[in-house]
Order: sequence, then structure tokens, then C-alpha cells
Amino acid sequence: MEVQIAVAKVNKYASSESGDTLEIVERPNGGLSVVLADGQTSGRGAKAVSLMVVRKVIGLLAEGVRDGAAARAASDALYTERQGKVISTLNIASVDLHSRTIVLTRNNPAPMCVCLNDEINVLAEESIPLGISRNVRPFITELPIQPGLTIVIYTDGLTHAGERRGNPMNVSEVVRSVLEDQDPSPQMLADLLLEHAVRLDENRPADDISVLVLRVRSRVGDTVRRLTVRLPIEGYT
Amino acid sequence: MEVQIAVAKVNKYASSESGDTLEIVERPNGGLSVVLADGQTSGRGAKAVSLMVVRKVIGLLAEGVRDGAAARAASDALYTERQGKVISTLNIASVDLHSRTIVLTRNNPAPMCVCLNDEINVLAEESIPLGISRNVRPFITELPIQPGLTIVIYTDGLTHAGERRGNPMNVSEVVRSVLEDQDPSPQMLADLLLEHAVRLDENRPADDISVLVLRVRSRVGDTVRRLTVRLPIEGYT
Repeated sequence: MEVQIAVAKVNKYASSESGDTLEIVERPNGGLSVVLADGQTSGRGAKAVSLMVVRKVIGLLAEGVRDGAAARAASDALYTERQGKVISTLNIASVDLHSRTIVLTRNNPAPMCVCLNDEINVLAEESIPLGISRNVRPFITELPIQPGLTIVIYTDGLTHAGERRGNPMNVSEVVRSVLEDQDPSPQMLADLLLEHAVRLDENRPADDISVLVLRVRSRVGDTVRRLTVRLPIEGYT
Repeated sequence: MEVQIAVAKVNKYASSESGDTLEIVERPNGGLSVVLADGQTSGRGAKAVSLMVVRKVIGLLAEGVRDGAAARAASDALYTERQGKVISTLNIASVDLHSRTIVLTRNNPAPMCVCLNDEINVLAEESIPLGISRNVRPFITELPIQPGLTIVIYTDGLTHAGERRGNPMNVSEVVRSVLEDQDPSPQMLADLLLEHAVRLDENRPADDISVLVLRVRSRVGDTVRRLTVRLPIEGYT
């Protein structure tokens, strides 16, 4: 088998800094975790908050702390620092080679999609962001690693796209249509979701948007680990 | 402009754990850093060392510490912990959007290649690994971000490939032939270098091998940040 992960990310229109932060960390007992946080408001302040949350979570995961405990710790740290006045969403998607499961941790009102082949399950249980109070509980889902599994996680910029224009985005419908029509690579699925949202916002995203897609497939080919990053640099063409 | 980064990584033959660790971190003043460490020996012990070095460097970079200072701090921490008995190489490749430069930090006897269009420059100045003594100096190269720039960084598994069989790899020759023949994506260049090395080792890599390619190009297309990861899972096909 192999796990493929793709991320597509844009800033709010005319904003040079994204309030969304996403990082990846190797798990000390095997596998990796993707950590995505969306800090309240946008621009530099939001960036500082989401960076702080992601740093905290990644540092703990790297020490072998379990995902749920890392989320609670980040929430307590944010609450202590900002006294409940600033909040941040958090999603962790972990490929845990020790338990041989995918562990999904969510502190985010925005739902996420868990798909097995063509069947789509929207996980929309109530989930509150970090830093809002003491004792914030993460919502945790654990799934066996199996081919055909696709997970779609996003920040609320995606669900809010088009709302201003009374034409909100139905994320699971777009996921369904893409999965039915073709066998998309994770990057293709992430790109199509992001494109759809940006189009609904008439090419001026009303918020930072991040889309993360994780897919498990039967292994095709070699045993090489690969990673690619594309970083557009503004101010130049 | 856009910066494209690609990594290809394999374990030593029949080893389930790589002693090489690579992680990416966002820089607090804009841009990102790729941090690659190769811990002494192989397997679990080497992994613990390279993970510790990468964690230390990434934590400091995330706080805004400069690359050279982060490398020195990681060296001192490793020396203090292991009394000079365990060493680790370190490479940092940073896209610093504050200074608008690429900053390359090297504590690694293995050289690296800096190419501008077809011209290849091998940086092979003597450079010692972290943790060997107090006062380890990193070798730092700072370059303006400009289209046509290609940087190739690797762990010594690449340069040692084929040595056992008296047929060592000439990295810069392979880079030259690939750059001359085509306009490769960073992933293609990283994959070709890795494939070449694995072939020289008769498909049984004698060491962990990691190849990192960073390329600056004129921007083609949108302003979306993208990231993809492929993680093969052993024990399943």
C-alpha cells in the first residue's frame, strides 16, 4: 500500500499572509502527521496564532505524545496565553504505522469527508476550536489503513466560499462528483475543490483556504518516499 | 517566480528505518526551510539522532533564529548529550522571503551542487558534521532567488553508491547530463539521481539515501501553494 497526501492552499484576496498553517512531522514510532490550524481573523495576527498551535502540536507529536493529548495541550496553551479571546481550529491527520491506522483529530466546526471508494461520509459532529475554554475535547476518528480510503479536510474558507454571493459551496457534492467521474490523484481532488471555491468567490477568496486530501492506494511501483512543494513568490511574475 | 522543491528518499536495503530525517518548516518572516540530517550508523539509533537534530533546528528556525545559529545550537546540544561520540550531518535549504535569498547551510562532508541554468558549481569545501566537537562552524552560502537556479543536496548514501563494487557515483556528472538533455522537474531530477545510485548498488542500497532538489522558475499559472507526499507502507503490496 501507499499513502498519498496533497495540499492546496491560497491566501485571502489581497492578503500576503495566510492565517492557515500546515506542517508535516514524522512520528517517532513510524508514519507521519499532517497538522492544519486556522487562526482567528486573517493576516499577521492569525498567522501567529496558527503557527503557535501547529508548533505546539508538532513538538508534542515528535515526542510520541498521542494526537488527542497534543490537541488538548495546544488548546490549554492558547487559552492560557490569550484568556479565551483568540481561538484557532485544528485538524490532525496521522498515518500511524505503529497501530496501522489513520487517526483523525478535529477541533473545527468545519466538517470533513471520509470516503471509502465511492461512499462518502461527512463527519459533522459538533466540534469546537482550541482556546475557547478549558477542557476542549477533540473529536477523534480512527480508521484502518486500507486501499480506497480518501479523506478530505479543509479550513472554513472552503465552506464559506460563495456565501457572500448567496451561492455557498457544497463540499461533499463536489467530492462526490469528482470521485464518481474519475480516479483522481489527491492533488487533482484538492486542486478541483480549491478551484471551485475560488470561482464561487469570483477569484477573490473571501478567506484563507486550505484543502488537505489523504488517499490510501495499493502500491504501484517502487518504495521511494517522495515529497514535493510548490511555493509561488509574490511580487515577481 | 516560484520555488519548487522535491525529495526522494530510500532506506538502506533490508532496513525498515531510515537514519535520514527531512522536515520542512515555515519561516516566521516568510518562506520555508527544508532541514535534512543523517545520523551516524543506520537503523533506530541513527534515526533517533537525526530526529533530535532536525527537531532542534526546526524549533529554533520557527522562533526566527538564523540558520547558522540554529545549526551551531543543534551541534552543541548533540555534543553535550553524546560527548562527541555520535555525530550527524546537517543541511538546511531556506527560501527566505525576508531577505529574498536562498540560504544554504551545510555541515556535511558530502558536497552539494548549485546550478544556474546549465552551469554547475560543486560546493565541496571541507565541512564537518554536528556533534564532533565544540565550535562546529556551518558552511553558509546565500544566493539571490532567481529563475534558472537549481540546488541539489544529498546525504552520503548517494556519493557512496557503487563504491563497494568499485564503480562510485559521480553526482555532478549525472546532474549535468540530466540538465543538459531536458528541463527536468525537481522530482524528475531527484528520482533520476536516486535511481542511478540504487542501480549502482544493484538494487540493494548500501546506506540510506536522500536527495533534495530545489528549483526556482518563472511562475507558470496560479498562486496556489501545493504540497504532495507519497509514503509507501511496507509489509503490504
